[in-house]
Amino acid sequence: MSATAIKHYLQFKDFTAAEYAYLFERAWLIKHKFKTYQKHHSLCDRTLAMIFEKASTRTRVSFEAGMYQLGGSVVHLTTGDSQLGRAEPIEDSARVISRMTDLVMIRTYEQSKIERFAAHSRVPVINGLTNEFHPCQILADLFTWLEHRGRRADGTLDVGALRGMTVAWVGDGNNMANTWLQAAQILGFGVRVSTPSGYEVKPEIAGVAAAANCWQVFDDPLQACAGADLVTTDVWTSMGFEAENAARQHAFGAWCVTPQLMAQAHPEALFMHCLPAHRGEEVAAEVIDGPQSVVWDEAENRMHVQKALMEYLLLGRQ
Amino acid sequence: MSATAIKHYLQFKDFTAAEYAYLFERAWLIKHKFKTYQKHHSLCDRTLAMIFEKASTRTRVSFEAGMYQLGGSVVHLTTGDSQLGRAEPIEDSARVISRMTDLVMIRTYEQSKIERFAAHSRVPVINGLTNEFHPCQILADLFTWLEHRGRRADGTLDVGALRGMTVAWVGDGNNMANTWLQAAQILGFGVRVSTPSGYEVKPEIAGVAAAANCWQVFDDPLQACAGADLVTTDVWTSMGFEAENAARQHAFGAWCVTPQLMAQAHPEALFMHCLPAHRGEEVAAEVIDGPQSVVWDEAENRMHVQKALMEYLLLGRQ
Amino acid sequence: MSATAIKHYLQFKDFTAAEYAYLFERAWLIKHKFKTYQKHHSLCDRTLAMIFEKASTRTRVSFEAGMYQLGGSVVHLTTGDSQLGRAEPIEDSARVISRMTDLVMIRTYEQSKIERFAAHSRVPVINGLTNEFHPCQILADLFTWLEHRGRRADGTLDVGALRGMTVAWVGDGNNMANTWLQAAQILGFGVRVSTPSGYEVKPEIAGVAAAANCWQVFDDPLQACAGADLVTTDVWTSMGFEAENAARQHAFGAWCVTPQLMAQAHPEALFMHCLPAHRGEEVAAEVIDGPQSVVWDEAENRMHVQKALMEYLLLGRQ
Repeated sequence: MSATAIKHYLQFKDFTAAEYAYLFERAWLIKHKFKTYQKHHSLCDRTLAMIFEKASTRTRVSFEAGMYQLGGSVVHLTTGDSQLGRAEPIEDSARVISRMTDLVMIRTYEQSKIERFAAHSRVPVINGLTNEFHPCQILADLFTWLEHRGRRADGTLDVGALRGMTVAWVGDGNNMANTWLQAAQILGFGVRVSTPSGYEVKPEIAGVAAAANCWQVFDDPLQACAGADLVTTDVWTSMGFEAENAARQHAFGAWCVTPQLMAQAHPEALFMHCLPAHRGEEVAAEVIDGPQSVVWDEAENRMHVQKALMEYLLLGRQ
Repeated sequence: MSATAIKHYLQFKDFTAAEYAYLFERAWLIKHKFKTYQKHHSLCDRTLAMIFEKASTRTRVSFEAGMYQLGGSVVHLTTGDSQLGRAEPIEDSARVISRMTDLVMIRTYEQSKIERFAAHSRVPVINGLTNEFHPCQILADLFTWLEHRGRRADGTLDVGALRGMTVAWVGDGNNMANTWLQAAQILGFGVRVSTPSGYEVKPEIAGVAAAANCWQVFDDPLQACAGADLVTTDVWTSMGFEAENAARQHAFGAWCVTPQLMAQAHPEALFMHCLPAHRGEEVAAEVIDGPQSVVWDEAENRMHVQKALMEYLLLGRQ
Repeated sequence: MSATAIKHYLQFKDFTAAEYAYLFERAWLIKHKFKTYQKHHSLCDRTLAMIFEKASTRTRVSFEAGMYQLGGSVVHLTTGDSQLGRAEPIEDSARVISRMTDLVMIRTYEQSKIERFAAHSRVPVINGLTNEFHPCQILADLFTWLEHRGRRADGTLDVGALRGMTVAWVGDGNNMANTWLQAAQILGFGVRVSTPSGYEVKPEIAGVAAAANCWQVFDDPLQACAGADLVTTDVWTSMGFEAENAARQHAFGAWCVTPQLMAQAHPEALFMHCLPAHRGEEVAAEVIDGPQSVVWDEAENRMHVQKALMEYLLLGRQ
């Protein structure tokens, strides 16, 4: 198999709208089968290697349990003290690990690391979180959004329902914000972004979004939420940025999703958060624990969409 | 499913005598099938999450290998530097993990942590050791006792055989001692306890046992062993109490299960220890390595009884 | 089963030439089945315990993925801060772990530790690397050598093809060198060794090799490579010897497998390295990344030969 033929999932933009339509449809079927105790062992004898340079609970459990439910197995590698690329060149690790496993999920810091790994891997590589992107989380968020606002009469999901809808992103211009912007361009919804000064979305991402005419920037988070169909945020200090914590606590004070912010949004707007959440910081308890919050569905759906993703990367359309 | 319908196993007293009779019978069958290489995949596609805040070998291997033998899978989570409840509230961890897995085993410090987790979990939670209780170990100990002293003519186990028997507990008034006292009340045997001064069983446990009239306290460990059908002890310093080690070494000197102590017991008395053991401290080498010791059977039986327990929590009586 | 009936794999010399002939034949079949997506679940319901006292990627992934492909399961134990034998005597760990699992792989420091473990284990024990030996790696190296230079007309492997061939070992007189010397005696090939002064093969190993007349020692690595069919080396500083790193960097300068060294060897000579590799230290980039290098096949073959090994230890000849 030539290296160019391998499909990786390193950024949201690696897939087309048509591929996402398939993935959401497939994830819906896979979730339905799981909930009704129907065996679905499409990846029997296939092994997923998971490489974690940052700690994880959600990503770990969702990928690992998901792979087992597909009849496959998992090797869970942590890099401990030595980072990926220190004991041996990333390229060599990619060559060796991809000789022994069928699929690799990596959670690391720089996007460039995962790209170097993928370039020398014989098997598909999945981005399980980098400083720049978090496509698997957005996949789960979109699926959850569709479950709540994009169902057809027969219960199946219609990704077209997102066209013309609006997401408000309140807070850090981080990997989640970047990935929302990529998703908006592909799936045709709008993003209203409000970040504290100094924590804006990076120009290279912002420029592409601006060109695609799919986003608007607001200084005031209240304005960003006006009429939004979905309000979402993230912790003020993501993993890897702990040194900036004090400065961030100061800068982000007004970027808390309060009931007042939710009141600006569409009356049926949903609230999402990729978790873990800090109540009283980026989100008020009344919001995350309130009726508009779908955060637990969102967490669970990581598992279902990733099962569809892994199956698609290894087997293509079924 | 309402939260109240979920069966957890947080303390020994969570189950009735009738439930224990079923569990031992089932564990016997499961062990027999395993030893004769008969497949018993009753938990196919089900996933156990194991959360360890304290290191473990026995609990780890017994639950993990056991779950695999039932056709299920395991996600092994360690909390590393951050304790359960630090990165996010325990309640949130419970909500998320129980959305992605079917069963949760927790080894932690305070019993209250496991109770908070269980209160917000959608799936059954098993106590894999807390400062207060160790019900899975006592389950294994009772099963081992029955294998050696409670067999019917056809080889099956008769939990009624324990009624009127006597256990001598020699040493720390710890989680093992607490759990023995709960078991005695439910299954109708007696406990003779001797602890060093300052290391007595906690009053709230002792009070219940006293009311149930199932225990006696002795200052002298020799007297505690008189006529006992089973003599058992534990390390002087359990995990989590390492800071008290010097004081404990001093206080526990006379609480060593020596051949002299065993000589006070019934001539066919068994010796048990939940391991790891420190020969020359809480037990003499002649005892743990002698003919009355059943400590290796006891260790192995963790796996068999826990298989029955997991199956019962997920599927009920079969 | 009596303890003496259990087959362990602690050193290369634990098996006969006939057993190796079977193992390579079986590994070839197992690899072929895997590559053609044929299920081969010969170890269903069997559990491998892996105990790591030294970090590992290759050994970890190859054993774990291999066991899953055989239909079995794996419990991965790291010893963390406490070394094997500190929390409890090695003998007790062996008794307990071998009561709950079917096979044990250990990576540790002293060979004596693994021997003590095996002496008290009820199940087979595999050496996954010690200071003294690395038999699983040599198993993979020999299999790779046969794939490239020992195929019969029908594609199967002929271990007899190694008879009379020559390996050049360039560098540290370490566990790999020791194991090559054991293999040479059993399979009838020659070893040409060149080590820096002070890093010679240990006398007890060298003496046996000398008696068997299967090796030659050279001061000059160029001479050691003359006419060799296979040139191989290892990092200058193996795990566990980091404190000697500066001295080793100085002593090993001339023991780098350069194109000049390879030019001394047979024109079709292969280059092997058990990895991770440090380009510019023990091997030049032109060599490890060049056409004679088979290091990625070598890494992958760890998995295939170890599957055959595990199956053989548990089931005997099939």
